[in-house]
Parts: sequence; C-alpha cells; structure tokens
Amino acid sequence: MRKVNFEEVDAEEVGKECKGVSIRWLITKDIGAKHFAMRMFDVEPKGHTPLHSHEWEHEVFVLEGKGMVLGEGGEEKLKKGDVVFMPSNEKHQFKNTGDEKLRFLCLIPYLD
Amino acid sequence: MRKVNFEEVDAEEVGKECKGVSIRWLITKDIGAKHFAMRMFDVEPKGHTPLHSHEWEHEVFVLEGKGMVLGEGGEEKLKKGDVVFMPSNEKHQFKNTGDEKLRFLCLIPYLD
Repeated sequence: MRKVNFEEVDAEEVGKECKGVSIRWLITKDIGAKHFAMRMFDVEPKGHTPLHSHEWEHEVFVLEGKGMVLGEGGEEKLKKGDVVFMPSNEKHQFKNTGDEKLRFLCLIPYLD
Repeated sequence: MRKVNFEEVDAEEVGKECKGVSIRWLITKDIGAKHFAMRMFDVEPKGHTPLHSHEWEHEVFVLEGKGMVLGEGGEEKLKKGDVVFMPSNEKHQFKNTGDEKLRFLCLIPYLD
C-alpha cells in the first residue's frame, strides 16, 4: 500500500481556460492505479474550471467551500459533503461562488 | 449530472467480520457509473473492517477521525486528509483508534 497526506502532494496551477484553479494528483497510474485516478482541486473565490465536455466521467466529493456546478440540465449549488456524478460527454463547469476556497475531490477513469 | 449530499444516502450496517462499520454507496452503476464506485465508510470507536484481500484495489481519502490501516508491509496511522492506495490482492484492514468516528471515502473499480 501507499499512504500520503494530500499536503505532501504538490498543487499545480491549471491553465487553459481555468481561473484560479490548482490540482493535486493524489493517486495515479504511476503508483499502480490501473483503473482510475484521484485528484484534488482547489478553486479560489471567483475562480472556475472551463465549460467543456470529454469522454471521461467525473466522480466528485466536495470537501470545503461553496460553489456551483453547471451541467446540461442547469445549475446545482455545492457545499461540503455534496456528491456529483458527471456523466461522460456532458458539458459542465465548476465555479467558486463563496468567499473561501472551494476544494473537491474529482476522480476519473483511465479509459483504455 | 446527478447531485446528492452524502446525508441523503442511507448508511447500511456492514456485517460479515466487521465491527461497528457502516457504508453509504454514493455513486454506483445504478446511476450510470460504469468504471468505479464511490462509497463512504463510518467506523465507530474500537470498530474495524475485516483483515482480508480481494482482486479490486481501494482508493481511500480520510475525511475525519483517527485510525490505522494495516497492509502487508505493516501499519500506517490515519488522520484527516490522508490518502491510501491499497493495491489489488494486498491483505488489509482499517481500524478506528480514536474516540470519535473514523470516516473515509473508499472507491473501487467495476472489474469486467
């Protein structure tokens, strides 16, 4: 097994149509995870991810902060303990709508 | 997309060699998750999961409490923000070693 605390993992700025977003890759192929990856996102106040879609789905768990997720059916507010399943190919965007950091886990499959 | 708060999902007691353990199935095949499932475990003080192994790996994120995870290489202490990758077929066990609930997310692949 392998154990780390998330604070030991470097946060990398995410550029490309994101604003105020950083990512930590917590569990990846590099340590033997063949099926899916665990990432942590921090979104600063007024920050957001791009409005985009892709083949891989998201499984999200909100750890702290307040935000909004936009999907093809409309918006949903986000708070601690919220769980979001974003299906494959659905257009989506995450936004921080609060005054504190929005932090969530976002897991994705390795498709191949 | 589908959003719920974890508190809206019923916690089911886990029997079978577990002590003081409940599970919430947060994201599953039933809502379209084809590749992996998100579950939340609550382990009561002095509670534990069985010492066992299986083909599916675990990706774990500790949300609250204090505990211990035993793997084939020995024990690791657990606290909030800890991340554990438990590989396929490694014998393992989770224990609550604190005075409060130990709560963690544990994700598993759908193997087929």
